[in-house]
Amino acid sequence: MSDERSGGGEFDFIERLRRREQKRSGAVGDDSPLSTLHSSLLKGIGDDAAVIRQRAGFDTVITADLLVEGVDFELEGGGATARDVGHKALAVSLSDAAAMGARPTMCLLSVGVTRERWRTGFLEEFYRGVRPLAERYGVSVIGGDLSRTPERVVVDSVVLGEVRKGRAVLRSGARPGDQIFVTGSLGGAAAGLRVLGARAGSRLTRAEGRLVKRQLRPEPRVEWGRLLGEERLASAMIDLSDGLSSDLAHLCRESGVGASIEAESVPVDSLLKSPALEESERLSLALDGGEDFELLFTVPARRAARVPAEVGGVGATRVGEVTADASRLTLVREGRPRPLRPRGFEHFGGRRR
Amino acid sequence: MSDERSGGGEFDFIERLRRREQKRSGAVGDDSPLSTLHSSLLKGIGDDAAVIRQRAGFDTVITADLLVEGVDFELEGGGATARDVGHKALAVSLSDAAAMGARPTMCLLSVGVTRERWRTGFLEEFYRGVRPLAERYGVSVIGGDLSRTPERVVVDSVVLGEVRKGRAVLRSGARPGDQIFVTGSLGGAAAGLRVLGARAGSRLTRAEGRLVKRQLRPEPRVEWGRLLGEERLASAMIDLSDGLSSDLAHLCRESGVGASIEAESVPVDSLLKSPALEESERLSLALDGGEDFELLFTVPARRAARVPAEVGGVGATRVGEVTADASRLTLVREGRPRPLRPRGFEHFGGRRR
Repeated sequence: MSDERSGGGEFDFIERLRRREQKRSGAVGDDSPLSTLHSSLLKGIGDDAAVIRQRAGFDTVITADLLVEGVDFELEGGGATARDVGHKALAVSLSDAAAMGARPTMCLLSVGVTRERWRTGFLEEFYRGVRPLAERYGVSVIGGDLSRTPERVVVDSVVLGEVRKGRAVLRSGARPGDQIFVTGSLGGAAAGLRVLGARAGSRLTRAEGRLVKRQLRPEPRVEWGRLLGEERLASAMIDLSDGLSSDLAHLCRESGVGASIEAESVPVDSLLKSPALEESERLSLALDGGEDFELLFTVPARRAARVPAEVGGVGATRVGEVTADASRLTLVREGRPRPLRPRGFEHFGGRRR
Repeated sequence: MSDERSGGGEFDFIERLRRREQKRSGAVGDDSPLSTLHSSLLKGIGDDAAVIRQRAGFDTVITADLLVEGVDFELEGGGATARDVGHKALAVSLSDAAAMGARPTMCLLSVGVTRERWRTGFLEEFYRGVRPLAERYGVSVIGGDLSRTPERVVVDSVVLGEVRKGRAVLRSGARPGDQIFVTGSLGGAAAGLRVLGARAGSRLTRAEGRLVKRQLRPEPRVEWGRLLGEERLASAMIDLSDGLSSDLAHLCRESGVGASIEAESVPVDSLLKSPALEESERLSLALDGGEDFELLFTVPARRAARVPAEVGGVGATRVGEVTADASRLTLVREGRPRPLRPRGFEHFGGRRR
């Protein structure tokens, strides 16, 4: 081990991580203050598996997201930092839990790093990105794995959440007439990716810097998700990872419905005005761009007025309506309807990167 | 998508996987026959997250294992097949669940593959390795992720299991005087790795072939683990992934105890006699080799007689005793005690591969 970094081998790293997490989550077990808040952790890092006791009256949601250097993020040439990767890996899975109407509670992070990155402290920095986000939402790191990779960093982020029994918001619950909403604004993350691609390493304007942040440090809509689940407002929900056009298509297929979106209502990120994009390009980034990690949800018309204007400083906008035409998506622009085709990201579809 | 493999893009693949899993696990939901057996799956593949209802009176265990091509397995030059990788990825996590005394119930598999392997059907083959093992133990694939990797296959395997409330068997429960047991036999997987390294591509003897199988297709001791948990026989348990010397050290450290192992009692894999290794080398493979995925467990002396001779055709052997000397491990050979040093695998310890 002495030939590796001064901090010791992987077991030492895991031991330090474990101590920090134990301190954070307080005493683990039934008399922990945490266990009155949510499902309790009986055993975290440091055994063959973690042990969890689900709070009575709740279901568990679980989701996994795999991020690969060179495909899902770039570490070289002014791309993401290790902290960015830590933040984003957790954020994308928190976003999935939020899209179920659940409160995220715990996570497992499996990370593969090269020897070089191990030596230069990638993992410590990675966890410096994970921790603030985990703390903000009361999420404990309870496990995961650590492996060596020959060339690239890979991260698999698994998030557990809890939702009141039977209240998980699926993609399949949308019905004709339901109103369609999205949280926040769209297109910023995709525009940020363009900025990174075009201007890596060069000095960014303030607006460009903020777009890049939308790409590298997406903020999962955890409070919105929980509220929509708790209050039984949303009939269906999905998070915007692939892009509105694709994710809406997923939701409609699962629900056996169609949708009509009003172009003028789509909340295009105001930052897109600054890099002086044409309006149609801005709209296209907002509809097809992906990785905004906003929530798209449907609400029965009679409850639509109960959707709050904002939650935790983040607004929601009505963008259209669910229709009975199974899987037909329409974009209405200046009064004229045209088909809205899914143009989002597929790893093996060859559309991006 | 048409430029990719004939089966379609990743969404099509996931859709096929989902249909197959739905068929396997029967109708999902409360009236499913599965839900009377174990925790029920309310929603599997096909949403932002899976939704699980934990059976009342049970705790959940969860574990993750990351396997990287070129580090944890080799696909080129007569190494593992895609099926082997599927089997092993699930097996190592099932083994962790077993080591908690839990019954494995569900898994999430995150897989990163190159375009080339995607085109040539790696994933279908991978799942052909996963499925028989999952079926044998009643485990459903409920989620995961799929990503592209530029060079290597990576797999993160997450297994969930259930154990009666408060009965999870931790590493920390061993007490001085407890008897130490291991299931099955040791050293075969490490010897199989040597065979693969030395004779890749060449024709193997029958014994060599069986050793290679111990390396590529380890059999997790699921029935043993469950029984030891259910019957409250084991005071502490760990699975042998890093090697007996290392894993025993982990268990002793967590329990604040030491251990004395009798060399003559260690169940060295009988296959090791065939490649004509010296006895000391055989013992060293059995003690330090790793990846046998047998279970190491401790039993209070008064209950030791209740440990069955075998479970599901796999035996267990008493190999030593827990001592009060915190973290001191001793190997007694021909009546002479000497220190037993952990020599197992660390990814960043540079000892193997």
